[in-house]
Amino acid sequence: MAESVTTAKGLAGVVVGSSRISDVGGETGTLVYRGFNVRELVPGTPYESIVHLLLFGDPPSEDPSRRISEALAAARTLPPALAEAADALPAGKPPLEAMRTLLSMMGDGTYGYPPTLEQGYELIARLPVLLTRYLRRSRGEDPIDSRPGLGQVANYLAMLHGTDPDPAHVRALTGYFDLLADHGMNPSTFALTIGISTQTDLISAATAALSVLKGPLHGGAPSLVVQMLDAVGTADRAETYVAEQLEHRRLLYGFGHRVYKVEDPRAVLLHQLARDVADPARVHLAEAVERCALEALHRARPGARIYTNVEYYSAVVLEAVGIPRDCMTPTFALARTAGWVAHALEQAADNRVIRPDVRYEGPGSGRTWPRPRGAGEP
Amino acid sequence: MAESVTTAKGLAGVVVGSSRISDVGGETGTLVYRGFNVRELVPGTPYESIVHLLLFGDPPSEDPSRRISEALAAARTLPPALAEAADALPAGKPPLEAMRTLLSMMGDGTYGYPPTLEQGYELIARLPVLLTRYLRRSRGEDPIDSRPGLGQVANYLAMLHGTDPDPAHVRALTGYFDLLADHGMNPSTFALTIGISTQTDLISAATAALSVLKGPLHGGAPSLVVQMLDAVGTADRAETYVAEQLEHRRLLYGFGHRVYKVEDPRAVLLHQLARDVADPARVHLAEAVERCALEALHRARPGARIYTNVEYYSAVVLEAVGIPRDCMTPTFALARTAGWVAHALEQAADNRVIRPDVRYEGPGSGRTWPRPRGAGEP
Repeated sequence: MAESVTTAKGLAGVVVGSSRISDVGGETGTLVYRGFNVRELVPGTPYESIVHLLLFGDPPSEDPSRRISEALAAARTLPPALAEAADALPAGKPPLEAMRTLLSMMGDGTYGYPPTLEQGYELIARLPVLLTRYLRRSRGEDPIDSRPGLGQVANYLAMLHGTDPDPAHVRALTGYFDLLADHGMNPSTFALTIGISTQTDLISAATAALSVLKGPLHGGAPSLVVQMLDAVGTADRAETYVAEQLEHRRLLYGFGHRVYKVEDPRAVLLHQLARDVADPARVHLAEAVERCALEALHRARPGARIYTNVEYYSAVVLEAVGIPRDCMTPTFALARTAGWVAHALEQAADNRVIRPDVRYEGPGSGRTWPRPRGAGEP
Repeated sequence: MAESVTTAKGLAGVVVGSSRISDVGGETGTLVYRGFNVRELVPGTPYESIVHLLLFGDPPSEDPSRRISEALAAARTLPPALAEAADALPAGKPPLEAMRTLLSMMGDGTYGYPPTLEQGYELIARLPVLLTRYLRRSRGEDPIDSRPGLGQVANYLAMLHGTDPDPAHVRALTGYFDLLADHGMNPSTFALTIGISTQTDLISAATAALSVLKGPLHGGAPSLVVQMLDAVGTADRAETYVAEQLEHRRLLYGFGHRVYKVEDPRAVLLHQLARDVADPARVHLAEAVERCALEALHRARPGARIYTNVEYYSAVVLEAVGIPRDCMTPTFALARTAGWVAHALEQAADNRVIRPDVRYEGPGSGRTWPRPRGAGEP
């Protein structure tokens, strides 16, 4: 039996396996997909080409990847039974809760183990179709069919808004999708990997991932950044607002990250995308709040390595392209489906059940039940 | 920054935290809940009292726990919106897929973080109501209301079958529920704990857990044991069957466990419960197959510590009390809800995001995209 290894709480700094998909450089401020620094890829790489890179390990021979574009376009059509089940779900639930249920509905007993590429395409392609169809129904609007001529990101905007997507919006949101597509062994990907390790199917594993991504400490906070910016109102109020929040020990959203101890490269690129696409007044406000928050946080904890995290300018970009606040975390999940599929396939290729130990610190054994045991139940 | 620790694949032997709930003694063949050896508890302890013990750390002052009985009875009534959503789900899906969707439907935006006891009662009480309601609808039968006078296990059988439950069945299934109620940091509980660590809500975390439990290497195999027994047919064919399976490198179900390197105490107790409740011919068959399988497995791998696992006699017990094959894994999940709730509350009481590292073994960074970057998407 292997010697027991005791780890830090939260598995901080604990290496649980190896992966060829992405490399998160917490001390260098780098994020690398299959050898490509994301600074090299964003903006300007179609999401389909990122999906191709993450799934196959090399760039496609053309942008956007023809293979991925065609596979996703074919998979976007919902099977009638799935459309029927989805349309029977009562409208008006919070989008992330509905999305989790809609994702679970995709599992109809036909997705077995191991996961396949085809199943991965269905996951990536159908989740935005299901989400937007639900959102439109909740608003009393007819669903918008996907269009073969549009890619994954443009289709998402078109199906969500029912209008031709603004090319500047597509460009910025594509950058967001590219940057959020994968991020090492983050909690949702870890949950998915545990699922695959028990030989559960891809839809179940992705449902586990989405359920974990919902947590505010993982994917659930960009809308809180928007709320915070609204609460500040104008750039000249930033300093007072930040001081008041800290005085009342209230949170400032969008700062600090478990892994990055330097600038998060995604934050830098999203800041640029925000400058490109958002209302300059909104960007000015966000920059003022960011400056005041970082100064105040560093004054409060001298020497602490606190930087703007990925959620901060994500929120500004998502807002600028018209993503409703309650769809910001669902949109994060849509971007992350690429990474989930890549990790599911990688785990299945060399699988072992992920089953850690836990140190028991409860009462010593040998306690005696205070009464005679009966039949088990009246 | 903490020093990086590299662990065994699958986190085997890796201690990811501490817990006061249950102690799995893989080398001693013991399972202890809050200081009580399960051999002390089964048969004869009502499931409500086990839930009480797992949640609060001490036995209730009466069996079954009045506090848990009343809380579960009150929570069994479905809110009308949930009943409506559940009844709109198209019938006829595999029960575990339906159960995952029904569980997700419980999340309506009102379950926040941290998880509460009340939410835990709702999870434990409502999941069997939702499952049996769905199953009966799929068979064209009216749902059976839960009965205030029956406990959790008897109600499950009554709602499933629409008849007064046989006391012997209730006793045996209660033993099963008691034994499956918790088991340290198993994969489903680990996924739930990761969810709670990101501050996701209890329903999301439980959905992640159920999605992982679905895997055949975790909770998905008892029905395969029943299929295997059917394939053998009669005890005198056991030796031939086992030899043929091994000759064709096909699996024998119900043997071996990651943690237990001696007899699994649950297997021992479930064997006794099977003797108490099942058709003697079926038990005789199961014992013959078990004997031949263990002999053959030990001949094939001399010195290997392979024992009958929890699933083997679980299958015989579940079959004897009338659980359909495709409901065996869902029934496992129903029993495990107690442990999930206990672990969710324990994790939330001292929380930190579970976010491990992974060793990147892909191409070195600095690769250059082969084409100029464009606008991101056509």
